[in-house]
Amino acid sequence: MKSLAVLHASQLITLAGTKGPRAGAAMHELGIIRDGGMLIRDGKIDSVGPSAEIEKKSSGAEIIDAGGRVVLPGFVDAHTHLVFAGNRLEDFERRARGESYEQISKAGGGISYTVEKTRAASEHDLLVQARKHAEWFLRCGTTTIEAKSGYGLTLEDELKILRVMGSLNEQSPLEIVPTFLGAHAVPREMDADEYIDLVIGQMLPRIATEKLAEFCDVFCERGYFDVGQSRRILTAAKKLGLKVRIHADQLSNSGGAGLAAELEATTADHLEKTDEQGIAALKSAAVQPVLLPGSVYALGSFDFPRARKMIQAGLAVVIATDFNPGSSPTPSMPMILSLACAHMKMSPAEAITAATINAAYSLDRGSQIGSLERGKLASFSLFDCEDYRETAYWFGMPQTHSVYVNGERVSRSGGL
Amino acid sequence: MKSLAVLHASQLITLAGTKGPRAGAAMHELGIIRDGGMLIRDGKIDSVGPSAEIEKKSSGAEIIDAGGRVVLPGFVDAHTHLVFAGNRLEDFERRARGESYEQISKAGGGISYTVEKTRAASEHDLLVQARKHAEWFLRCGTTTIEAKSGYGLTLEDELKILRVMGSLNEQSPLEIVPTFLGAHAVPREMDADEYIDLVIGQMLPRIATEKLAEFCDVFCERGYFDVGQSRRILTAAKKLGLKVRIHADQLSNSGGAGLAAELEATTADHLEKTDEQGIAALKSAAVQPVLLPGSVYALGSFDFPRARKMIQAGLAVVIATDFNPGSSPTPSMPMILSLACAHMKMSPAEAITAATINAAYSLDRGSQIGSLERGKLASFSLFDCEDYRETAYWFGMPQTHSVYVNGERVSRSGGL
Repeated sequence: MKSLAVLHASQLITLAGTKGPRAGAAMHELGIIRDGGMLIRDGKIDSVGPSAEIEKKSSGAEIIDAGGRVVLPGFVDAHTHLVFAGNRLEDFERRARGESYEQISKAGGGISYTVEKTRAASEHDLLVQARKHAEWFLRCGTTTIEAKSGYGLTLEDELKILRVMGSLNEQSPLEIVPTFLGAHAVPREMDADEYIDLVIGQMLPRIATEKLAEFCDVFCERGYFDVGQSRRILTAAKKLGLKVRIHADQLSNSGGAGLAAELEATTADHLEKTDEQGIAALKSAAVQPVLLPGSVYALGSFDFPRARKMIQAGLAVVIATDFNPGSSPTPSMPMILSLACAHMKMSPAEAITAATINAAYSLDRGSQIGSLERGKLASFSLFDCEDYRETAYWFGMPQTHSVYVNGERVSRSGGL
Repeated sequence: MKSLAVLHASQLITLAGTKGPRAGAAMHELGIIRDGGMLIRDGKIDSVGPSAEIEKKSSGAEIIDAGGRVVLPGFVDAHTHLVFAGNRLEDFERRARGESYEQISKAGGGISYTVEKTRAASEHDLLVQARKHAEWFLRCGTTTIEAKSGYGLTLEDELKILRVMGSLNEQSPLEIVPTFLGAHAVPREMDADEYIDLVIGQMLPRIATEKLAEFCDVFCERGYFDVGQSRRILTAAKKLGLKVRIHADQLSNSGGAGLAAELEATTADHLEKTDEQGIAALKSAAVQPVLLPGSVYALGSFDFPRARKMIQAGLAVVIATDFNPGSSPTPSMPMILSLACAHMKMSPAEAITAATINAAYSLDRGSQIGSLERGKLASFSLFDCEDYRETAYWFGMPQTHSVYVNGERVSRSGGL
């Protein structure tokens, strides 16, 4: 039985002690142990406490001296679009020239561009590119991500993307939770109803049978899938045993939050335009909001979702990267912590709660990851700083020192 | 004679061919060589061209295979506050709670807090902390920085800070260009006129005699130093042979840009509130604007300086980190490239020009650094991407692969 003892964390951020996601004021409680340590056996956490106590139990264990660094649970990134081909540099350059999302889309950019590239790519090529993305996530301290399909929009291409996630999940230490987002956009070759029939009639049953996804998601938005169409798809998904996430109220306050409540979705994501009524609806059904400030930033907008109102309303807020080639090309959770504090006025403690334990519950993994406590998987990172707030404060350069998944070291930072 | 050949850059971004900073449309011209290479002798660039040509000249040279990566000149960061003690995590947390700059200052935060800490620190301790900051800059691909004093505000403490820069310049591969910013704030123990007398009567002569700084800077702003006071200090500095930079129009349009033009300052920095009249004044005196979007971002503001108007007016724009513990805790020039594109609507090419050759000219080093061409110092970085625009596009995680100063490798990135 392999054992490992982490000693002398300046702050061991445990987030221990809750049986569900943390809402409202509880988001401030990080359960910090100073000069903290952790004993790990066979990839799981055996005990957590002051270094002096852990050291007593550590005979025979391999010692990791944290050397006064901060130790955090691995970040859990609950909203990413991991698998795609190519990039969207042309869109990026057009946006810098002041063109709008709609103009860029008309000029051949937008989701359709990535769909074309992704359809044309082989499963192998997609896997190679996704593996690079996975390495980026790990290097930033993220050990579990949710990943959505949605750049295929045909049965075969959606299956291809979900299979890439499955392969990568086996090859990479990064844990990948798959979500089927067939309803990401209506493909150019069909009308909406035809495509919805395809999603419901063919894609969903196949994905459910092959167990290729845990969640089903829909881009509920004007010009994509309206509330009625979204309801049809998600209701069908629920019948097949999939849990539900929704892209809601990103570009307009179009009823997405209300639908999420009605369907008892696990999460409602984006919510830039959600009003107080929408927030109340989410609260009534205990839907977790997943806020994505990276896409607000990268689109050059200042219209951040109302994190403070949501926390005040008692919601268990999650923050995530929204990693994707169009609107949020960042794999860095530390960047999202910075955005959450600077632009959504979350405290560093709230942001870290949102990026760990709350995110873990939003992926139905709250009992396994997201905090450092007995029985959970030993997935954690050391950061080159003494105070956890520094992970959000020094921005643009993750201070990750080293990253562990299930007790195995998977990444180390560079040096000079 | 040691020689080194860099081969097979997907894009070698030379920025070659100008004898001055690039203004207006010329900011788009990066001088890209595809499958580019570079021959280096004794730390200087001997020749630049297609890999095939460079390879022919490379017998006996050590080969660096760039492996299809992007090669850029080392970034030149023309505005930093490198040397300080402690951090400003309390301010950061207060700002996340919605408190204003003024409220934070009244609560014991702001510049005064860092001044207290810096005064209390020994030269050795400041050097240790500054060395850590220097390593961060190198890791992000920056090889030359300007660094300002200004957290001492007594003769001895300002000298101490400038001596730390001098020591670090000798110890670290990072090149440091020192600026005296005694007039960063009025210290609590004096009134403004008393302090200005100290700056002009004692600090400036001593600094000029000991050659501790190349530039003199003033925080020209309501509540700090008004235009008349700034003029007195900077005129005295010019008489002693120092060149001039000005913190201008950051919080209010208070005449800073006009003063910069009047004094033929090398740069006017910040300029968030500068209007068209101010821009015209800068143009008339060929003052280079140094734009600092990191501090706008980190202060939670959206009030970015008008980069497009400045470029259209024919100014040779520079972008810099403004690295400091209060308003811009980032050493990452890639982060600033991202902000420049996403929020100041600069093109990636303009942003790179602003962060290299234009910044080099603003530090009076345009003939030595800032581009990759024969005769210049071999300070450059490899980035883990194929297209230079990716350095700005993927944000929050610098893609630096390796960094060279004067032909010596000084930093490499981590891996998995």
